[in-house]
Amino acid sequence: MSDTSEHNGNKDIVAFLGPAGTFTHAAADRHFGEAVPKRGMSSIDEVFAEVEAGRARYGVVPVENSTEGAVNITQDCLMDTSLGIVAEVIIPIEHNFLMRRDTSPAAIHRIVSHRQSLAQCRHWLKAHWPSLTTTEVASNAEAARIAAEDPTTAAIAGERAANLYGLQIAERRIQDQSNNSTRFLVLSRENALRTGGDKTSILVCTENKPGALFRVLEPFNTFQVSLTKIETRPARDSIWAYVFFIDFEGHAEDAAVVSVFQQLRDRTVNVKNLGSYPVAKV
Amino acid sequence: MSDTSEHNGNKDIVAFLGPAGTFTHAAADRHFGEAVPKRGMSSIDEVFAEVEAGRARYGVVPVENSTEGAVNITQDCLMDTSLGIVAEVIIPIEHNFLMRRDTSPAAIHRIVSHRQSLAQCRHWLKAHWPSLTTTEVASNAEAARIAAEDPTTAAIAGERAANLYGLQIAERRIQDQSNNSTRFLVLSRENALRTGGDKTSILVCTENKPGALFRVLEPFNTFQVSLTKIETRPARDSIWAYVFFIDFEGHAEDAAVVSVFQQLRDRTVNVKNLGSYPVAKV
Repeated sequence: MSDTSEHNGNKDIVAFLGPAGTFTHAAADRHFGEAVPKRGMSSIDEVFAEVEAGRARYGVVPVENSTEGAVNITQDCLMDTSLGIVAEVIIPIEHNFLMRRDTSPAAIHRIVSHRQSLAQCRHWLKAHWPSLTTTEVASNAEAARIAAEDPTTAAIAGERAANLYGLQIAERRIQDQSNNSTRFLVLSRENALRTGGDKTSILVCTENKPGALFRVLEPFNTFQVSLTKIETRPARDSIWAYVFFIDFEGHAEDAAVVSVFQQLRDRTVNVKNLGSYPVAKV
Repeated sequence: MSDTSEHNGNKDIVAFLGPAGTFTHAAADRHFGEAVPKRGMSSIDEVFAEVEAGRARYGVVPVENSTEGAVNITQDCLMDTSLGIVAEVIIPIEHNFLMRRDTSPAAIHRIVSHRQSLAQCRHWLKAHWPSLTTTEVASNAEAARIAAEDPTTAAIAGERAANLYGLQIAERRIQDQSNNSTRFLVLSRENALRTGGDKTSILVCTENKPGALFRVLEPFNTFQVSLTKIETRPARDSIWAYVFFIDFEGHAEDAAVVSVFQQLRDRTVNVKNLGSYPVAKV
């Protein structure tokens, strides 16, 4: 396939971690609107590949606290990709009890969902359906698909999946913790515009020396740039002991951030700017 | 059920994140040996609950880079639990191509596995089975169970699952990246013995102030204690802006570590010692 351009409507597609009806799909709809064409990919790697190859203009992947596969894969992909982060989307994860419109709770013999969703609704399930069998399936969207075919099976999934498969929401918000949310990243070959309310994500590799992390953080303290997140990841080869993912407030073009970058380059093996983008409205 | 004791052999059970045949099961076998009785639980929360209630003496859960559910759940459980970490187990994640002993590659029409395992073997699948349907199921162990019932279905799973379901390993180590490993924690109500080759895990909560993380790390630099891992987690209430999981070299009784703890207590809202335990042999 040839490369896309801003003026080629056919390639203005949003690739997301599918299948249809996942929370990542909901995040893509929330950010771009439902009218923008989207394509569900079967893995996080494929979302990156689709945007890198120009077959999609944007990609949406989970990066924190997701039920939809290990977000470590997203971090691994960020190490290698030429794409930048242009937005973050935070959506509350609300689980619902879904069944066909032509059935009733009395007819339900089985509940299907993703393992993590079943775990997140464990107390509710114990209180309301103590004797029902639960079956783990690959995703919440898959659970909704199964329930749509069987009037004796209920699914636990999001509202997006309910709408997609024409299921009724017999009960809303059944998850045990009410403030559960997932963070998604929007990826692109283009940069985001500076808004003044931005954050920046970087990847830092350092050598295996005591105090390496401390030296990485000193410049942020010196220039009073606030960190919002830091995470170490195992290095994929033995040369670097540490790989850090760091999120901080500010844009890569802010004077303080430029100074931080200058000091970081003297103190680390590698600094990769993953992108500056607007802080999500929650 | 009543509380266990060290002298009650019946409660000397190891609870792990099941079902049987998962990589967590393999980690439990590697650490305790196959002869020690084990019980597969259906969620990470239940592993913690089983050990907290004294129905099991030890619990084994994934904490990094696992195919078996979001390890964020493990971190959330660590915030609340009274249990301590007494060991870590690191095992290489090796995926194998499995089928029944009475079938052959020519008879295979479908490949089943966990979504992440399929993703991790994507290049191998494209090279060797470009036209075969892949189906996502809830876990690798579930995939092996399905393949054991159907001579036209192959599974991608670990060796433990192959043995459990009597499958042949048609090809070993088919994952695209060779140095993929998962870290597991062993939990207990008792403390681990000090070995001299230990590490310590702590949980630190700080207020929402610029430089908060820097102030947390200063004592480690002052007393030359090496960090091996740091991770921020979203706080579950709005009082604390930051919750950090920090792993470092040394035992909580080491003089340098005692000094670090003293300084941390003056600088943070809360410090929770999750346990000191021997560094895993890889």
